[in-house]
Amino acid sequence: MDHVLLKGVIAYAITPFDRQEKVDIPLFQQLVERLVVSGAHAIAPLGSTGVLPYLTDEEKEAVTEATIRQVAGRVPTLVGVSNLTTERTIYHARFAEKAGASAVMIIPMSYWKLTDDEVVAHYDAVASRISIPVMAYNNPATGGVDMSPALLKRLLEIPNVTMIKESTGDVQRMHYLRRELGEEVAFYNGSNPLALSAFAAGATGWCTAAPNLIPELNTALFDAIQQNDYSTARELFYQQVDLLKFIVNTGLPRAIKAGLELYGVEAGELRSPLKPLTENENTILNTIISNIKN
Amino acid sequence: MDHVLLKGVIAYAITPFDRQEKVDIPLFQQLVERLVVSGAHAIAPLGSTGVLPYLTDEEKEAVTEATIRQVAGRVPTLVGVSNLTTERTIYHARFAEKAGASAVMIIPMSYWKLTDDEVVAHYDAVASRISIPVMAYNNPATGGVDMSPALLKRLLEIPNVTMIKESTGDVQRMHYLRRELGEEVAFYNGSNPLALSAFAAGATGWCTAAPNLIPELNTALFDAIQQNDYSTARELFYQQVDLLKFIVNTGLPRAIKAGLELYGVEAGELRSPLKPLTENENTILNTIISNIKN
Amino acid sequence: MDHVLLKGVIAYAITPFDRQEKVDIPLFQQLVERLVVSGAHAIAPLGSTGVLPYLTDEEKEAVTEATIRQVAGRVPTLVGVSNLTTERTIYHARFAEKAGASAVMIIPMSYWKLTDDEVVAHYDAVASRISIPVMAYNNPATGGVDMSPALLKRLLEIPNVTMIKESTGDVQRMHYLRRELGEEVAFYNGSNPLALSAFAAGATGWCTAAPNLIPELNTALFDAIQQNDYSTARELFYQQVDLLKFIVNTGLPRAIKAGLELYGVEAGELRSPLKPLTENENTILNTIISNIKN
Amino acid sequence: MDHVLLKGVIAYAITPFDRQEKVDIPLFQQLVERLVVSGAHAIAPLGSTGVLPYLTDEEKEAVTEATIRQVAGRVPTLVGVSNLTTERTIYHARFAEKAGASAVMIIPMSYWKLTDDEVVAHYDAVASRISIPVMAYNNPATGGVDMSPALLKRLLEIPNVTMIKESTGDVQRMHYLRRELGEEVAFYNGSNPLALSAFAAGATGWCTAAPNLIPELNTALFDAIQQNDYSTARELFYQQVDLLKFIVNTGLPRAIKAGLELYGVEAGELRSPLKPLTENENTILNTIISNIKN
Repeated sequence: MDHVLLKGVIAYAITPFDRQEKVDIPLFQQLVERLVVSGAHAIAPLGSTGVLPYLTDEEKEAVTEATIRQVAGRVPTLVGVSNLTTERTIYHARFAEKAGASAVMIIPMSYWKLTDDEVVAHYDAVASRISIPVMAYNNPATGGVDMSPALLKRLLEIPNVTMIKESTGDVQRMHYLRRELGEEVAFYNGSNPLALSAFAAGATGWCTAAPNLIPELNTALFDAIQQNDYSTARELFYQQVDLLKFIVNTGLPRAIKAGLELYGVEAGELRSPLKPLTENENTILNTIISNIKN
Repeated sequence: MDHVLLKGVIAYAITPFDRQEKVDIPLFQQLVERLVVSGAHAIAPLGSTGVLPYLTDEEKEAVTEATIRQVAGRVPTLVGVSNLTTERTIYHARFAEKAGASAVMIIPMSYWKLTDDEVVAHYDAVASRISIPVMAYNNPATGGVDMSPALLKRLLEIPNVTMIKESTGDVQRMHYLRRELGEEVAFYNGSNPLALSAFAAGATGWCTAAPNLIPELNTALFDAIQQNDYSTARELFYQQVDLLKFIVNTGLPRAIKAGLELYGVEAGELRSPLKPLTENENTILNTIISNIKN
Repeated sequence: MDHVLLKGVIAYAITPFDRQEKVDIPLFQQLVERLVVSGAHAIAPLGSTGVLPYLTDEEKEAVTEATIRQVAGRVPTLVGVSNLTTERTIYHARFAEKAGASAVMIIPMSYWKLTDDEVVAHYDAVASRISIPVMAYNNPATGGVDMSPALLKRLLEIPNVTMIKESTGDVQRMHYLRRELGEEVAFYNGSNPLALSAFAAGATGWCTAAPNLIPELNTALFDAIQQNDYSTARELFYQQVDLLKFIVNTGLPRAIKAGLELYGVEAGELRSPLKPLTENENTILNTIISNIKN
Repeated sequence: MDHVLLKGVIAYAITPFDRQEKVDIPLFQQLVERLVVSGAHAIAPLGSTGVLPYLTDEEKEAVTEATIRQVAGRVPTLVGVSNLTTERTIYHARFAEKAGASAVMIIPMSYWKLTDDEVVAHYDAVASRISIPVMAYNNPATGGVDMSPALLKRLLEIPNVTMIKESTGDVQRMHYLRRELGEEVAFYNGSNPLALSAFAAGATGWCTAAPNLIPELNTALFDAIQQNDYSTARELFYQQVDLLKFIVNTGLPRAIKAGLELYGVEAGELRSPLKPLTENENTILNTIISNIKN
């Protein structure tokens, strides 16, 4: 199995809603198209950015199909299929595979903290039912489970769990992964403010919603890294770091929607209880974006 | 509206599953019956103990109806109706009211951290659609949102939000609630190991899954408190504290199921990814329960 | 050895300085006298309240002698002798014993986090050189080392380490101590806002700087507890809890000095870098004290 | 004032003791000599590594003089002068300046948490009494005060506070410093496991005890960074990261002493309560060092 199927800037799409808070599939496809043509190296629907946990089964299926239809093989797709129960996770993973996804991403969502054995059994039950690669996603701040590096190592023993996405914001986790797992295992950075550190540490890719707003800066950073030119990478990073921190701090779906509108791009509505940025937050975002343009 | 509708030991029921991991309603009703006859002052289905987030809409409705049918007005019922989206929370709150629930409990479940304004709008949207009292439930460890005492104070301005359940495990939150909100607002303790401290601080009730295993000790503790006899309360508390800590640390659904079986009571299966206690955990639980009996 | 040498309200004295930031021994003795006559059950100089770590060896000796001279056997004395190095801790412990202290208190001050073995060896080296009882003091927020209940249990195997002072603010530590160590070992509460919870949990005493400001409320709380009258204890606790939280949050030496001055009692100066409360903090303290009086 | 007086690998010396736990100045000078000849870009005595807080005033003076005598101007010296009281900090800063130190390092050591105003006043009082540059050192894990980036910005308004050493282990603090303070202010990394990330983020230097053990790897990393060759830097970093983590986790004075002895270099004794590495820790260190050599 190809361990480096995904590489570079993996762009996360938002899920836009109409005024009745129904998923707006046509608008979703437009937003996916923007990501593809702006140079993203892969497209990832149904992540945190895409408010996966707020969607019904039918909505998730519609978003999955719309993604694959729109991307049409131009770049790989990485579809989020996480669910609280193992049974539903299997269901959506199989759906994504059949629909044509390149890979699936799974975060062990929890209400009750899961034991390590429960997490391993969960991944194993899902991965064994599909043939496409699985990215194990660690993000305790949203998912509620913090998978230790030792647990991630156990997950990688499952044949098609081949990628790790680390979003704890602790670059030392990445050092450990690299030391412990060797160079053949791909790890991905999911913490936007760590983009530079993670690439320096050897990350294969950057999972980010930022390409919805600043795709050129995101891909230019990756290009500089590829060329081993960190002076340039550092300069590019400091140009975008304020935006990267802002979208994380205010929440990706809310921040990306607001940013798109500042760029004059239609972004639809949010689903309650999520609400638009406050006026004050909007002003800060506007300033950050203006500073980047200059 | 009666602020002290609920008082004393509020017993949380588990949701048992059959071997196909389907909800076992007949067994559920038996377990509810045990709680009622053992002296619980109120019955609470669909809490964390009842694995609310792992159930489908239909399952939640069936559990709600089964509870009210079985309890049959002998004690009040407090039905959990929390959901990630506001729309689904309204739906289940209205369902519970129509089915005959005495009150509903709502925790602001989150994937994305909610702002204070989002939380207030969420509660307001739900509470305004029903007439029965709402218990606002604060438990960042499971729900992902930590509602500050100041935010809880804002929630209490909503007319039928009349009860606060605090499960942060920080008794100082309760001191603040009492100082800030006065004696007329009822607060409830949801942190088992704080049972004694919370009653000392003036808690109106104790939300707990422990009555599934040790109902006499739980109600005896409350009785001693009612009689202002803390020497006895302390003695009773230290008899049960090891069990209270154990069921929290290993997760209520897993621990209660195991404990029931040690008592020879059928408890059904868990839904994946949740797994039974390990052999080692079972041994510890057995020792704790044996020590209590002696 | 008497395990309950110290009981009830153990009052911590501040160390006042003159305008040249030299220790003002005559003023110190006046402040100690106030504590004794106001009903404190024991007097504790050279604690955190007494800015022990900011004093020279000579100053510590002068304060120790002044305390014992002034208290003159009316109540027991508990002298702080903590130091970063083992050698200096031994020195001050022996000095305190010779000067006539009833007991010494030792917190494992650290710059480098100490291992459990280093902590045990430190206490053992000191305790074996004196004959009076030692109170092991756990306060990671000031001392930098968090002694686990298991470590505290090891310390109690040292013959004259007979008392534990817990200041983590986590009442569950006290539950553990009581369960693990039995009723014969005395534990003391050093976290002011936990005064009520700790007594409910069975604490033998309350180590507090509050008697500098509200001695009657402090001892009345202990009296109510002694009489197993928690309704009264709760009422008394809620009368003083705002002050208890304030003095902890703003720092005991700064807050007690300011409070004494609001009461018209001379309190001397602080030693730099510590500075008086800000005007805003003073206003809050004034309001809290006014509310208590009414 | 030259903002980049210090650059590259700033090597921290341990303070060795004899069997009576007295400072061994001749041995100290030998260890300093090793650091200078092995290529360190600056020498820093009396840091955490040098157990500053465990030394008497006289010992600090002797170590300061011995450093300057031994280094003899070959590289700059950065002398730690931190103390709990402002008065003693001024004293040692003036002593260091007179003795010929190139710069002084000050961490706001605390027992009581200091307010921002207290920290600023402390630095201002010290810095205004000397003419050499001051490095403000942020390390809440040892010093007990966490200086926010905003506070560090205030400190930099003091004329001769020109350098920031960040040891929180959070690379985002460095991003903030760079964005907020601009390129003209030098920041230094004091967190060994962040060496690569910090240089990627633009750190001017690396404050580290590692050159006592692996000077070539440390300086080679810096050289690769200087040449904008991060592929090489990454490779060098992963060769040394296990050692960097180990010496931080077990405590720098204990780990460096043990490492020196594994290399056959005399390192003296520790001062109690610090104890040598356990046998098990020594075995791990031995393995790490063997892996580096191969």
